[in-house]
Amino acid sequence: MKVGIINIGDELLGGKILNSNQFDLARILAPLGHDIPFNLVVGDDESALARSLSWVTGPLTPFKPDLLILTGGLGPTKDDLTRQAVAGFLGRPMVESAEALDWLAEFLGRPAGEMPWGQRLQASVPEGTRPLRNPAGTACGFRFEAGGIPAYAFPGVPAELDAMARLHLLPGLKGDGVLLERSLYTWGWSESAQRQAFGAIELSPHFRFSSLPGERGVRITLSSLCAPSQQAGRAEELDVLWREMLKSIPKESIVDTEGSALPQAVVKLLLSRGATVSVAESCTGGGLGFLLTETAGSSAVFHKGFLTYSNQAKTDLLGVDPDILKSHGAVSEETALAMVRGCLDRSGATYAAAITGIAGPDGGTHDKPVGTVWIAVAAHGIAHARVFKFRGDRNVIRWRSAQSALNQLRLLISGQMES
Amino acid sequence: MKVGIINIGDELLGGKILNSNQFDLARILAPLGHDIPFNLVVGDDESALARSLSWVTGPLTPFKPDLLILTGGLGPTKDDLTRQAVAGFLGRPMVESAEALDWLAEFLGRPAGEMPWGQRLQASVPEGTRPLRNPAGTACGFRFEAGGIPAYAFPGVPAELDAMARLHLLPGLKGDGVLLERSLYTWGWSESAQRQAFGAIELSPHFRFSSLPGERGVRITLSSLCAPSQQAGRAEELDVLWREMLKSIPKESIVDTEGSALPQAVVKLLLSRGATVSVAESCTGGGLGFLLTETAGSSAVFHKGFLTYSNQAKTDLLGVDPDILKSHGAVSEETALAMVRGCLDRSGATYAAAITGIAGPDGGTHDKPVGTVWIAVAAHGIAHARVFKFRGDRNVIRWRSAQSALNQLRLLISGQMES
Repeated sequence: MKVGIINIGDELLGGKILNSNQFDLARILAPLGHDIPFNLVVGDDESALARSLSWVTGPLTPFKPDLLILTGGLGPTKDDLTRQAVAGFLGRPMVESAEALDWLAEFLGRPAGEMPWGQRLQASVPEGTRPLRNPAGTACGFRFEAGGIPAYAFPGVPAELDAMARLHLLPGLKGDGVLLERSLYTWGWSESAQRQAFGAIELSPHFRFSSLPGERGVRITLSSLCAPSQQAGRAEELDVLWREMLKSIPKESIVDTEGSALPQAVVKLLLSRGATVSVAESCTGGGLGFLLTETAGSSAVFHKGFLTYSNQAKTDLLGVDPDILKSHGAVSEETALAMVRGCLDRSGATYAAAITGIAGPDGGTHDKPVGTVWIAVAAHGIAHARVFKFRGDRNVIRWRSAQSALNQLRLLISGQMES
Repeated sequence: MKVGIINIGDELLGGKILNSNQFDLARILAPLGHDIPFNLVVGDDESALARSLSWVTGPLTPFKPDLLILTGGLGPTKDDLTRQAVAGFLGRPMVESAEALDWLAEFLGRPAGEMPWGQRLQASVPEGTRPLRNPAGTACGFRFEAGGIPAYAFPGVPAELDAMARLHLLPGLKGDGVLLERSLYTWGWSESAQRQAFGAIELSPHFRFSSLPGERGVRITLSSLCAPSQQAGRAEELDVLWREMLKSIPKESIVDTEGSALPQAVVKLLLSRGATVSVAESCTGGGLGFLLTETAGSSAVFHKGFLTYSNQAKTDLLGVDPDILKSHGAVSEETALAMVRGCLDRSGATYAAAITGIAGPDGGTHDKPVGTVWIAVAAHGIAHARVFKFRGDRNVIRWRSAQSALNQLRLLISGQMES
């Protein structure tokens, strides 16, 4: 089913908040095989919303949704205008619903007769629409038809939207398809190299491919939507194609064939080897430890780590020789190696990673500009250091450093480290 | 100026990522007084995008944008279709731009003649459009006219979009108004308490108030858009109203009157006192150290920290008595206090914070359910521990723990800690 989403609210357009309502609805609908052909966001403007409804359901729409979901604008305050806009679009007056007033009274635990008008407003709906109970708040929703398309108006507060979508929408939305999906992260493989590698692979119209670069690497996804009766055959086709794609990716760039991102992949590798890891962090200040422990169960592989932001801390906590710091500087191969060896030694872990770099915006020099980061990884008898030159702001450089350290750990643990 | 935004990408519609591009553009445009009347998100579908352009610029549009911005779909991979869709909409062929090829060659540091075709693709634009240099990546943008409306196509990678908007869009977009804004974060003050506190404050239609709960607390903003000639008088009115609001907020709930969030507020407090801080982290695994060091210049106040995920680490690195761990458990007032005292002692810092809790999803018990987190803060001769019961998933509990530790530090350093 094609589900169009209209989110309503000045805060969504004005850069005050990210549009999580669309995201949350997609995460409910996509696994059931429903498609979201478009998402329109409009402000708290009665006329713009009414005209948008005509536009979206009109003859020139590039999208033909089978269902429409509206979120937001159902509260009691002056900027909540969805009820009026829909009434205007339908050419009908507003009416108070006795049923909705009862729900409200029950939710607030006070008799309907004692309801302040500000609250009572929320029990009104456009005439001829069906009120929908809100189990998580006071704003009543409603169901209506927009140009022949069934439509739901839900509140924008995330917990209320979630509760109402599950109560009113899901039971009627039998998945009319099955979404099959294969996905993995690559790290250190450019999207243009990917394009060339995948260039010869032909995709039939049944399949969709996506490549999404992000903080955790490039996530590639191959998916197919099919009827339940076609599932077995389609899954087989999908797997053939997926294996062909996997063969075109340099092995060391595949974070994890099962789709894990770096933090989970490293924890899995360590668990499978009964090994542990420790960290020594300078410019990331804890970001690497934070990532390593984001996976439940990481306590089996991570016991301790050292935040050594100052030179003195590198000496005190890791035993880095002050002469090394003096002659090579804190951001150097020698310091990174001394840090990782100290970390391995003092933690007793199987593996260790150390990060020391210049995250900026200040502190860069001609030889070591902002973004210069040394990352070292080690195990008993092995230590490997590599310099990275990251671009971006302080935040980007720090996250990228932590993720790159995870990748170096992954390569070392899985025996793929170039020497 | 009314700026319409079209974001392109299956990942935006399918619940893979939040639409940060729209958010980031709004944060650039709103302060200049520009309005975003709508935001349309479409998938990686050449025909849907071409038809959307007709629709948005056509006679029935409820919005009449003065400018259009497209983001996404300019990379080299198979799902990058914006170039072709715009070419289809304009009825023109694709051509390689020699200028764009030169930029690409310069960016990649290799001669244009040696460029692999996968890269070279990105130097093509619809004929008759103006290529736009991307200073932060390889995907070239372009400027075109859509039904008489000037339009820009920018890449969707956030850092590239930001760089291109600043380079190509902003210089031509003189603000036609001035946005005055006062904003601050509150922490530990409910929105319903806020509504009551602010209930008696009247806002003239010149002013907008917003309250946005988020990871860093509730951000309240009072703003006003005015003509440059009105700026002085309006700013004065704004300040009168803002001071009235500030007086209604419990003093200890104001993170920083100048608008800083907790990490920056704590660093500022420490700098003003010439003091330092250290951390001892269990369930957050480095998140607190990461937040403390996100501010440039934090090296003056943060030197070292201890990641003590296991019981043994708490004893080894902080000197926590194994008997305390045995009799009270790792998540207890006694352990939190022993951790913070050990951290203060072994770091030599002026202040210390320690976190130990159950982030879940496993590990909860009847007495200590998932979300139980002890946070202790200390200075010479003072130690204070408090238990928090956070709701949410592992990720929410960990961030909330780190931010709450910052808040406890803020209260201690500023002398507002209840005893």
